[in-house]
Amino acid sequence: MTTALLTDHYELTMLQAALEHGTAERRAVFELFPRSLPGGRRYGVVAGVGRALDAIEEFRFDDESLAVLRDGHVVDEQTLAWLADYRFEGDMWGYAEGEVYFPYSPIMVVESTFAGAVVLETLLLSILNHDSAIASAASRMVVAAAGRPCIEMGSRRTHEMAAVAAARAAYVAGFASTSNLAARHRYGIPSVGTSAHSFTLLHDTERDAFTAQVDALGAGTTLLVDTYDVREAVQTAIEVAGTGLGAVRLDSGDLGVLAHEVRAQLNGLGAEDTKIIVTSDLDEYAIAGLSSAPVDGYGVGTSLVTGSGHPTCGFVYKLVAREGADGAMVDVAKKSKDKISVGGRKYALRRRTTRGVAEAEVVGIGTPPVDDGDDRSLLVPLVRDGAVVGRESLEQARERHHAALAELPLPARQLSRGEPVIPTTHVGDLTG
Amino acid sequence: MTTALLTDHYELTMLQAALEHGTAERRAVFELFPRSLPGGRRYGVVAGVGRALDAIEEFRFDDESLAVLRDGHVVDEQTLAWLADYRFEGDMWGYAEGEVYFPYSPIMVVESTFAGAVVLETLLLSILNHDSAIASAASRMVVAAAGRPCIEMGSRRTHEMAAVAAARAAYVAGFASTSNLAARHRYGIPSVGTSAHSFTLLHDTERDAFTAQVDALGAGTTLLVDTYDVREAVQTAIEVAGTGLGAVRLDSGDLGVLAHEVRAQLNGLGAEDTKIIVTSDLDEYAIAGLSSAPVDGYGVGTSLVTGSGHPTCGFVYKLVAREGADGAMVDVAKKSKDKISVGGRKYALRRRTTRGVAEAEVVGIGTPPVDDGDDRSLLVPLVRDGAVVGRESLEQARERHHAALAELPLPARQLSRGEPVIPTTHVGDLTG
Repeated sequence: MTTALLTDHYELTMLQAALEHGTAERRAVFELFPRSLPGGRRYGVVAGVGRALDAIEEFRFDDESLAVLRDGHVVDEQTLAWLADYRFEGDMWGYAEGEVYFPYSPIMVVESTFAGAVVLETLLLSILNHDSAIASAASRMVVAAAGRPCIEMGSRRTHEMAAVAAARAAYVAGFASTSNLAARHRYGIPSVGTSAHSFTLLHDTERDAFTAQVDALGAGTTLLVDTYDVREAVQTAIEVAGTGLGAVRLDSGDLGVLAHEVRAQLNGLGAEDTKIIVTSDLDEYAIAGLSSAPVDGYGVGTSLVTGSGHPTCGFVYKLVAREGADGAMVDVAKKSKDKISVGGRKYALRRRTTRGVAEAEVVGIGTPPVDDGDDRSLLVPLVRDGAVVGRESLEQARERHHAALAELPLPARQLSRGEPVIPTTHVGDLTG
Repeated sequence: MTTALLTDHYELTMLQAALEHGTAERRAVFELFPRSLPGGRRYGVVAGVGRALDAIEEFRFDDESLAVLRDGHVVDEQTLAWLADYRFEGDMWGYAEGEVYFPYSPIMVVESTFAGAVVLETLLLSILNHDSAIASAASRMVVAAAGRPCIEMGSRRTHEMAAVAAARAAYVAGFASTSNLAARHRYGIPSVGTSAHSFTLLHDTERDAFTAQVDALGAGTTLLVDTYDVREAVQTAIEVAGTGLGAVRLDSGDLGVLAHEVRAQLNGLGAEDTKIIVTSDLDEYAIAGLSSAPVDGYGVGTSLVTGSGHPTCGFVYKLVAREGADGAMVDVAKKSKDKISVGGRKYALRRRTTRGVAEAEVVGIGTPPVDDGDDRSLLVPLVRDGAVVGRESLEQARERHHAALAELPLPARQLSRGEPVIPTTHVGDLTG
């Protein structure tokens, strides 16, 4: 399916006006960047890059799309003809998926003609704003979980397709698995799940439900033990499954207290290896609050798929340089006082100490910042002459995130509100 | 494309266990409902019903889906065979699209076998939780705008497919139009848009940009006047377009103050009919704050697509009645103290005064509440014996929302935090 209509109307009216005025083919540089991190966060996480590359390849105005634009008088025939032939033929660089970002990180740099780059604005922003918001929240949850696995289970609390992307973004940020079967299908992410309260309620007794589940799924399954009385359910669970029961799940009540009680009960029954999984409106703070409880895994739903209070990143896509009437490139930026932009083609590196600890996000204007010897360049080629060159596996993105996070100063791992853990420094000509 | 894998893994493992245990075909009633409204809201808005009906029709486990489940050992061969033949063959009732809701409104009631109904849980929740969250926020914005048109332009701040659904939900709730071209394509929603700052920056002068736009799109277009200096831009805009200029758009700064200044300037230039459109991180409170400013339309982005602080509704889907071993139906509910459910098949009506003002949401357990003569029954048939019977146009949903909102007591229109504007009352046997 083409992605071309996942686009704001004004991208195409701008295109029409530029085509008629002879400015559409001016060389142009667009930059996708954040002005800030969500309130109090120490770092952000770039996700969605792989999805964006897929979407660019599928961005074609087919006959059906063109008919919609023609019938709706969205643009004129000249513009329709241009769109019919449209392929992105420019270059893109960007932060690789899983990388961390800070205010004014040039997360994506698009070099093309104005026309070629402007039509991608909405779609690139949609994908990166959504996926990075989820990954940014997910990374904090993984940090809070301190090595215990986090399971993504928020599909039901977000748009059905956003759910698939959320599972993917969470996996990039270190989640172990997802409940979402389409995420397994599309991205190969491990999916997990056993049963809900409805399964227990379906049966005449809880024992009957547990028996049905263990018979079908084996003793290694996870039994949900809070439908009626937790203590009775744990007793029944071990009677039915034996001490080899995989896990019990707690989905309500005071999870910390319950986990201690259930752990003691399980141990008393000889089920020392039966794990305890907790779910129920967890977020990074609740996860951290359970760090001393005997919990073996966290299922996270609503707060994950809604970015834990910050469901979008606020990335913008701005023209930062373009060809003038004389053919020379000119840096450009709007002057609105409350929405600062910095003109000019950007480059970026992460300044690191000799011991490899990140100390600044250095954004070069017009030319790349100089590597002090221990620094790391951040922009990688994504598209060259219209061909995707930056595709990689989800595992690579996941490993990159792990490494990028490990490189940050320790306060990055604090959940409390604060400043970005490293400052952003611009070098080069800021007057453009 | 099939929607069948937009589903949580555990729906299918429950199915497998129930199939093996002989309980899968027990008659069952599931209910989709909210336990509360988002903090302080006075009412919620049901949206996504039409999308849910489409998704149910497309819910088929095709060969590709089955291969994913087989290769991943998600379920066994017996279950795969059952899924291959799956069609929803039960009945559904629900609140019609655009209807308002309150805590414990039985927004959707699904009667089928356990197996037939449980597999739809994730998808129904995804669609209704997302779309209703957007519509609930949108309705408050429309109320705050007090008759001035609201334009949905949030596509770039949410997942690319969620954006299309958000445009649809906003339209149900009374928005006038959207920026999203796919929403035009799929749902026939009017799309609008003219230009961004990048268009002005592309050109050597602002005058050149305005000239290009007016030449291409006509004097009726909307010129964006805050790229450099608003006062100069308004002057240039009228010089270029004449006093017949359609509108100017303000996207930064103190919009209230600017709107007054620009209105005076436009009037002074003889452009009394040129409208002023404002955008820039508006939400319902900012819109209300501009009510005395000479503004002719509001463009709303981020806060619309993120539900203005409440990006999901928290609807749940619970088994409330099922057949027992003896063939009789039994009301069921879990006992978790912090997540209250009420067992039993529900019916609902909106109790109204003789003057037609809503005064209570009456939920009948087991039997329909009695109509006092001025009341309105809320559950409409959506699916009968597997066939969709509740499909209607978006215009009908939009009109329904308008009427349902008009029927609420006046405090419904207050933006301040408060209790639901009418109470929810259960009648019938609550012990089930």
